[in-house]
Amino acid sequence: MNREQLFNLIQQKRSFLCVGLDSDLTKIPAHLLHEEDPVFAFNRQIIDATIEYTVAYKPNFAFYESRGIAGLQSLSRTMNYLEAFQDQAFTIADAKRGDIGNTSAQYAKAVFDKSISGFSFDAVTVAPYMGEDSVKPFLDFGGKWAIILALTSNKGSDDFQLFSNGSGKRLFEQVLERTQHWGSPDNIMYVVGATKAEMLSNIRDIVPDHFLLVPGVGAQGGNLQDVAKHGMNDHCGLLVNASRSIIFASNGVDFAEKAKAEAASMQQEMETLLKSAGLIQ
Amino acid sequence: MNREQLFNLIQQKRSFLCVGLDSDLTKIPAHLLHEEDPVFAFNRQIIDATIEYTVAYKPNFAFYESRGIAGLQSLSRTMNYLEAFQDQAFTIADAKRGDIGNTSAQYAKAVFDKSISGFSFDAVTVAPYMGEDSVKPFLDFGGKWAIILALTSNKGSDDFQLFSNGSGKRLFEQVLERTQHWGSPDNIMYVVGATKAEMLSNIRDIVPDHFLLVPGVGAQGGNLQDVAKHGMNDHCGLLVNASRSIIFASNGVDFAEKAKAEAASMQQEMETLLKSAGLIQ
Repeated sequence: MNREQLFNLIQQKRSFLCVGLDSDLTKIPAHLLHEEDPVFAFNRQIIDATIEYTVAYKPNFAFYESRGIAGLQSLSRTMNYLEAFQDQAFTIADAKRGDIGNTSAQYAKAVFDKSISGFSFDAVTVAPYMGEDSVKPFLDFGGKWAIILALTSNKGSDDFQLFSNGSGKRLFEQVLERTQHWGSPDNIMYVVGATKAEMLSNIRDIVPDHFLLVPGVGAQGGNLQDVAKHGMNDHCGLLVNASRSIIFASNGVDFAEKAKAEAASMQQEMETLLKSAGLIQ
Repeated sequence: MNREQLFNLIQQKRSFLCVGLDSDLTKIPAHLLHEEDPVFAFNRQIIDATIEYTVAYKPNFAFYESRGIAGLQSLSRTMNYLEAFQDQAFTIADAKRGDIGNTSAQYAKAVFDKSISGFSFDAVTVAPYMGEDSVKPFLDFGGKWAIILALTSNKGSDDFQLFSNGSGKRLFEQVLERTQHWGSPDNIMYVVGATKAEMLSNIRDIVPDHFLLVPGVGAQGGNLQDVAKHGMNDHCGLLVNASRSIIFASNGVDFAEKAKAEAASMQQEMETLLKSAGLIQ
């Protein structure tokens, strides 16, 4: 899915919501545990309940990898199911990959090349620490996206991302300035945590046109209005992720219904923000 | 395997060689392709041929993940096979993981908790960009190791790892200084590329006691003598990795024999260096 198609989807659904599929087997409703693949059964119902309000799904690979081969099977079934909604949702492999060039090329196949790995995500999250050759192989796939970590939503983000040079430039700013030249707003997005909303204006000065993937709204405490105020651009430019606050809104038999209500509530707030910005009528 | 056990193994095998299992299906010998699991058949013969000269094995996850579920099965069979050599080899999941705390905890289970994921590596490589809470969950597993990226061997390592603050301190030095306090030399190692051997003395000033995992000798051009000269400490403190130069020493039916010869040659050079340092007799 390209940038114009993503913006069209946002206008059509009047939403820039990304649902994070952090589908922890130990947290899903008990009545699903008798299913052959409880995590897939959970994801399928979450997708059915939220697809109307959601422009992107982001499986968090850790929650699948922690279950070994069984976990990868749950992920595979989930992504095959999502294929039925191909034009209705952008898909993000939240895997934080990055290694030397020939190795990153293999990681790119793992998430993008269905003929080899079985997976064909639209995008993958990438850690920038190892530099250009660690990122480029993801950008070399036509029609695919790398979503590079810039300023993350967690407490530890201060440890290195705010490391500052003699002129006051911080590492995350160096990452934004340098990496944008390795691709374009058509194949690079950035991760910027909602808990750092006050820094979004500064980030928009460096990357005015790129989409930002914004985690941290909901369970982590970020505020949607602040994110939109400082981060929205003329293509919306935001995918705001919520995981636990939606998928674990209830752990009873009504989990899908409660997830739907939570997603609908966020969509309504997003619709108001898109209208205020003149991006929809 | 703890630090003393690893040092004992190094003394016993007179080697600090780590063999990287970057077992690319498209590069393994053609005669193996009729096997039910060609990559496992390849790894098994590589392990049998090199175990005498090798203290650690490091499967590079990208080469398994790129083949989806089939790749994970090859990795699983390889690690089950290596269990027979439990006290004879340290095992490293080369996966470059790192995410917010609750997610890193899942990645830690994926590589360390056999009861859940099926894997029980001794160590995992970790990207530090997201800071303390992204690294800590790996250190919370008793008897396990995090191997944190410091200064890598690839060209792109210059992009951010050498980013320098006003006092001339570079990011990789900040990583070394800060992360060492999150654990100890008993559960943290660092990745330092052999192509940066001249910087090893400087790194040893910051982390005198930690083990360093050193890729880049062999195909990437690093020099073993320089690495030992600048990086060895009183527990050896080095695991020098070679991947392609050993496992793909030949792509014919003699691949295991050639891999053995290559590993033996490196072991002999390492034995000389260990003797010179007075670490073995």
